[in-house]
Amino acid sequence: MTQLTISQRGHNMPASPIRKLVPYAEAAKKRGIQVYHLNIGQPDIETPKMVLDAVRNSDFKILEYSHSAGNESYRKKLVQYYQKVGIDITPNQIIITTGGSEAILFGFMACLDPGDEVIIPEPFYANYNGFAVSAGIKVVPITSYIENGFALPPIADFEKAITPRTKAIVICNPNNPTGYLYSQDEMETLRQIILKHNLYLFADEAYREFCYEGTHFSAMQLAGVEDNVVLMDTISKRYSCCGGRIGAFITRNKDLYNAAMKFAQARLSPPSFAQIAGEAAIDLPDDYFNITKAEYKSRRDLIVKRLNAMPNVFCPNPGGAFYAIAKLPIDDADSFCQWLLESFEYNKQTVMLAPATGFYGTSGLGKQEVRLAYVLNLSAINSAMDCLEKALQVYPGRKV
Amino acid sequence: MTQLTISQRGHNMPASPIRKLVPYAEAAKKRGIQVYHLNIGQPDIETPKMVLDAVRNSDFKILEYSHSAGNESYRKKLVQYYQKVGIDITPNQIIITTGGSEAILFGFMACLDPGDEVIIPEPFYANYNGFAVSAGIKVVPITSYIENGFALPPIADFEKAITPRTKAIVICNPNNPTGYLYSQDEMETLRQIILKHNLYLFADEAYREFCYEGTHFSAMQLAGVEDNVVLMDTISKRYSCCGGRIGAFITRNKDLYNAAMKFAQARLSPPSFAQIAGEAAIDLPDDYFNITKAEYKSRRDLIVKRLNAMPNVFCPNPGGAFYAIAKLPIDDADSFCQWLLESFEYNKQTVMLAPATGFYGTSGLGKQEVRLAYVLNLSAINSAMDCLEKALQVYPGRKV
Repeated sequence: MTQLTISQRGHNMPASPIRKLVPYAEAAKKRGIQVYHLNIGQPDIETPKMVLDAVRNSDFKILEYSHSAGNESYRKKLVQYYQKVGIDITPNQIIITTGGSEAILFGFMACLDPGDEVIIPEPFYANYNGFAVSAGIKVVPITSYIENGFALPPIADFEKAITPRTKAIVICNPNNPTGYLYSQDEMETLRQIILKHNLYLFADEAYREFCYEGTHFSAMQLAGVEDNVVLMDTISKRYSCCGGRIGAFITRNKDLYNAAMKFAQARLSPPSFAQIAGEAAIDLPDDYFNITKAEYKSRRDLIVKRLNAMPNVFCPNPGGAFYAIAKLPIDDADSFCQWLLESFEYNKQTVMLAPATGFYGTSGLGKQEVRLAYVLNLSAINSAMDCLEKALQVYPGRKV
Repeated sequence: MTQLTISQRGHNMPASPIRKLVPYAEAAKKRGIQVYHLNIGQPDIETPKMVLDAVRNSDFKILEYSHSAGNESYRKKLVQYYQKVGIDITPNQIIITTGGSEAILFGFMACLDPGDEVIIPEPFYANYNGFAVSAGIKVVPITSYIENGFALPPIADFEKAITPRTKAIVICNPNNPTGYLYSQDEMETLRQIILKHNLYLFADEAYREFCYEGTHFSAMQLAGVEDNVVLMDTISKRYSCCGGRIGAFITRNKDLYNAAMKFAQARLSPPSFAQIAGEAAIDLPDDYFNITKAEYKSRRDLIVKRLNAMPNVFCPNPGGAFYAIAKLPIDDADSFCQWLLESFEYNKQTVMLAPATGFYGTSGLGKQEVRLAYVLNLSAINSAMDCLEKALQVYPGRKV
């Protein structure tokens, strides 16, 4: 007789490394401590009013299923958006997904079988692990290093990691959690690897617009690998629409598109309300990103300057996204982040950070590193950095 | 070197049996034919105005991620709803999901491992197949029969189907596609089976309110199997909110809840806009379902009467949901449904039906059966039945 147990994959499923500190933050707040949340990528930027108004002024009478690939009107509009950023696609190469999350899951499911391997430069977005467990596939990390700002690992490291089970490489550009912006040269390196070994390239470009040094070069702009590339996109960060749960799975590979569509049909349709929001966002004025980007850049400049001014702290200057990873003079990032919430305060304030350990696939790495999401305004960032600076002076596990 | 191919599961993933006829319907419309859509469960009932207004009158400024389990305010409200229908649960036993679809996927993922088996009485909701392929599990159908209205198969049939890999039974009550409403006695039979063999019981109760004969008895009301039962719910049909993509995964099993929460955290949160809609719906007046139910009941009465008045057509009287399966004097339901769209018209009209073959797990079954969703008003149903009646007189593959 079988036992009433949860599945092995239910056991293997990783708990969110970002959210596991939440109970400590809640307890701190109950003690009257103000907590600066630099731990999670929820921007404080207001969602553009015209985007929310499009939903609020809608006048349909039945909240119907949309097409499984998303509303055709939205997919047509998206083609305009992608043209503006130098990506040529058609509406029939787009599947609107429930957040970028679902685009990742569809890619894993449609391209890889259980036991197959996907190579991801680490540190990487921790939820890739979760979707890999769901799909029964193996994440093979290759390490990038804080010393060179988390640049793409050398081609030899990819070659070493490739096995007969390797089916894909995931790249997040600009990168969460490192903020690294991959250069066109680095993207061309990836092109060579995927072409040589017949691999898929899954490109997560959630932060495409947020580049502060150089320009963004999309995986969709690589020549001669049209069938290999899958763009996994989302409007969450782009327009501060995290709660909309609207993303996109985009590929020029017709067979793959058809396979992914079957997964899309099984779940019927993406959310209808937020598709209206996403469609309206395409009509935002061209200077919308300039304003948002300028705000994020000033935050980045501040946080990187403050961090590097602290003794024995190193933070490379991230070229994009709204994350930075800093190396701190501490024994253990998990203990430190918990201690910040449990045992530390400065003027009744403290700061919540994400231990970088959760972003590495190789255990033991990132123990002196934390990720900071600069999703708060300059004043809050300054206060948070004041807290961190004081904390590093008194933390019992200080270690250079 | 690996080949650039889609995955085996991408191949195995079934195409939607309901949507595959869509191109033929589109072609018919282009020829000027009016198509009555009885093929898909998209109700024509207007979404309650107060539900849509709750979203339209919202005044938040940032479309933020919600809690991964859904807004606490919504989960608290849902407890009230469930109390009214006789189900005692707490907010911490609820995970708000992206449609009922995601609740099914979470259940399959968290309870079963690849190769494990789930027993489902057939005909069944075709998308269970899709989620089973995603999860790498095997659907074991046991047949229910149109002759007795698709009642629960006898306990001996379950016993025969159970193997060491069996982990769960799925029941949809009232049933899609048959409309069958399981009695309390039948639910107690299921209770015995899951208790004896330590199985999960996944209860899909999307159509709970739409019962026309007898009353609904929920799997959550079964005694002594609190850890075994998972409720997979959705607001899609209940409030005509299909496009909201809001459902719920509900269990009193704490370990299972915690495992499912890890899957929920990986995808961050359910859609924010439609959670507002779902929360508002709890405050609909108590007579809301009476009005909707009366409308569906009159449609059911009409469609069943019209069908059984046609020569050699048999349609059992469904006790709930808004589906009926009819046996027709035809050679092949797939050919017939395509022919209706491709080659038939009556007064410039035709009807689109779902071949029942797609709802059976056992190949070869359902070839003379079609599913009709009575989601159109009485006048449209009459016209659609006029078309069907004429079609059966002239269909070349007529076969008693």
